[in-house]
Amino acid sequence: MNNFIYDIPVKVYFGENQLVHLGEELARHGRRVLLVYGGGSIKANGLYERLAAEIQRAGLELFELGGIAPNPRIDSVREGAAICKRNNIDVILAAGGGSTIDAGKWIAAGACAEHDPWDFFTKRSPVTKALPVVTVLTLAATGSEMDCGGVISNLETQDKLARMAPVLLPKASFLDPTLTYSVSVYQTACGAADILSHIMEVYFNMEQDLYMLDCFMEGMMKTVIKYAPTALKEPANYEARANLMWASSWAINGFASGGRRQAWSCHPIEHELSAVYDITHGLGLAILTPRWLAYCLDEATAPKYAQFGVNVFGIADNQEPMLIAKESIARLEEFLFETLELPRTLSAVGISQESFAGMAQKACGGRVIPGFKPLAQQDIENILAMCW
Amino acid sequence: MNNFIYDIPVKVYFGENQLVHLGEELARHGRRVLLVYGGGSIKANGLYERLAAEIQRAGLELFELGGIAPNPRIDSVREGAAICKRNNIDVILAAGGGSTIDAGKWIAAGACAEHDPWDFFTKRSPVTKALPVVTVLTLAATGSEMDCGGVISNLETQDKLARMAPVLLPKASFLDPTLTYSVSVYQTACGAADILSHIMEVYFNMEQDLYMLDCFMEGMMKTVIKYAPTALKEPANYEARANLMWASSWAINGFASGGRRQAWSCHPIEHELSAVYDITHGLGLAILTPRWLAYCLDEATAPKYAQFGVNVFGIADNQEPMLIAKESIARLEEFLFETLELPRTLSAVGISQESFAGMAQKACGGRVIPGFKPLAQQDIENILAMCW
Repeated sequence: MNNFIYDIPVKVYFGENQLVHLGEELARHGRRVLLVYGGGSIKANGLYERLAAEIQRAGLELFELGGIAPNPRIDSVREGAAICKRNNIDVILAAGGGSTIDAGKWIAAGACAEHDPWDFFTKRSPVTKALPVVTVLTLAATGSEMDCGGVISNLETQDKLARMAPVLLPKASFLDPTLTYSVSVYQTACGAADILSHIMEVYFNMEQDLYMLDCFMEGMMKTVIKYAPTALKEPANYEARANLMWASSWAINGFASGGRRQAWSCHPIEHELSAVYDITHGLGLAILTPRWLAYCLDEATAPKYAQFGVNVFGIADNQEPMLIAKESIARLEEFLFETLELPRTLSAVGISQESFAGMAQKACGGRVIPGFKPLAQQDIENILAMCW
Repeated sequence: MNNFIYDIPVKVYFGENQLVHLGEELARHGRRVLLVYGGGSIKANGLYERLAAEIQRAGLELFELGGIAPNPRIDSVREGAAICKRNNIDVILAAGGGSTIDAGKWIAAGACAEHDPWDFFTKRSPVTKALPVVTVLTLAATGSEMDCGGVISNLETQDKLARMAPVLLPKASFLDPTLTYSVSVYQTACGAADILSHIMEVYFNMEQDLYMLDCFMEGMMKTVIKYAPTALKEPANYEARANLMWASSWAINGFASGGRRQAWSCHPIEHELSAVYDITHGLGLAILTPRWLAYCLDEATAPKYAQFGVNVFGIADNQEPMLIAKESIARLEEFLFETLELPRTLSAVGISQESFAGMAQKACGGRVIPGFKPLAQQDIENILAMCW
């Protein structure tokens, strides 16, 4: 059990109509606000108008950068950072899902740097300063609203790179479940798979840590499995949307990982998939996760799967761990591919086997991912083959 | 499901030897440190020396106030506030259990007030300013290390009063499980009962809230039930002490309660017990909680008990809720009074029935506690009679 430092000072306004507090939160940080948003859904559903009205009501000045793409691009970050510098922006307001919030964070850092923002990823330039970021979440998935990381893609180099830095942690996040009512069935399903993956990357871990945190992770997985189907059937079910939303934040804000230091496995592989094929992050994770689990199952790891199967899926515990383990993988596949109706394979979403070797090589950086089970390039190719 | 604001910016250093960071944490807030501690156990076990050494190593100046009593007294708060004013103290370092930390918080507030600190409780004087507080926890119980409340007793008036204020939230807390190795069997048991009670006061609730939070509370209760017996038998079991310690903080830091607004029931009653008889807070809660649950059980509330029994004690769910409910109360009593070996009744700890009416009247303030079930004076007297 390793030591850890818990430090998550994000203030969260949770519930309907909490946006009435938006103006006062932004005003803590200054008067000139850059609103960052995505493909225009916030204009279609009226959120843009509400944000603009709150900003105006607080007497603040609104600047904006729309068009942030899923798997957000370094070009948008560059553009946002330039807007900030040109206009002396005081605070970033990122309204959207994880892509928009990730872009907002790196715009905030880029605004305070003299160099090209892509240097943060390729040259590991220090991230010591960033504009304050406030978020309004519209999709329960990445957890970016309560963590200090962000993933940015570079289409030219086919890179999709992640980095964390404490200064990127949002100052405040607004989580209004009703803002996710308009999320499509497909994106809701992908979001649920993303949340589950964030938990499983930590839960399936050979490092000993606090039992209490395993209980919390099991509770979050049960929450996703209970409520995602409801949200698919009844998009405006507040209880379902609220549970998914709060689970999305706690799945990845660092609390659940305690002192575990083991690397994540599916995420670096998925980042290569979506860097090349631009598929939805949660979908890539859904396809990868059960195959990764199947690949890592052996006598040494089976007890962890059995714990998962019994505590999350309620499988009877009076069987051999290996049997429970196999049933729990089957139950997970059933959830992802039948209940959530996500595509089951990489071939089904048009991904070719030809690129597997290159993606595998990039995912492990030519070395080994020191995860639940160490994964070298050949292991990753094998997992990708199982996904095809 | 009500809205809520989540805002718990306490930084926690968790694990062994994290005290190496103490100097830098204190130095963020100033140079003149008032160390507040209790009956001298920190001198006996070497902690005092370590704290003094870290303070010296950081070049800070140490002032001190020892002798904080369990059920800490307003007299100590007055004395501490006077020391702060006289010496221009910059930061309070509270090293101990909940009593010491509670006293430290109110000293921090008293230091910034012109009036008598007791006015905070009796006249509801505004608590708008306080010196920064850093804590070093030595007992897993009250959760004061991660919340913004504190309970202070006045022996003259036989009052024990609680109040919360955001400015009292510790800036940082050091949670080193090895510092609890020397906690006695009895205090470990009382601490476990205290943690359980904090969770149950929220969990047994007729307000609808997030399912995810119920899962978390069930996980914390399972954690206490799993590890308290280990800590009693093996006081230096790191895993047990670490799980109890982190559970103590999360049981009451506000996260689990989400948007629930229902009042707590056992705590106001227990405060009257220990105001008059000066018994250990956790013991009073242990005696009260199962009787309160028994008193509140009816057809409307039974499903919540059944959920508790199934998810926390693993009782088979193929029975009537009322049967599971009764079995879960019996299992809780077995845990508190047999496994933890805490005294089962108020008579066993020398409390007389004569004072019940007065305590009940004070506990509900002559009105009704709007808790899990509304409790008027007669209800509280009935519960106390069940405890006797």
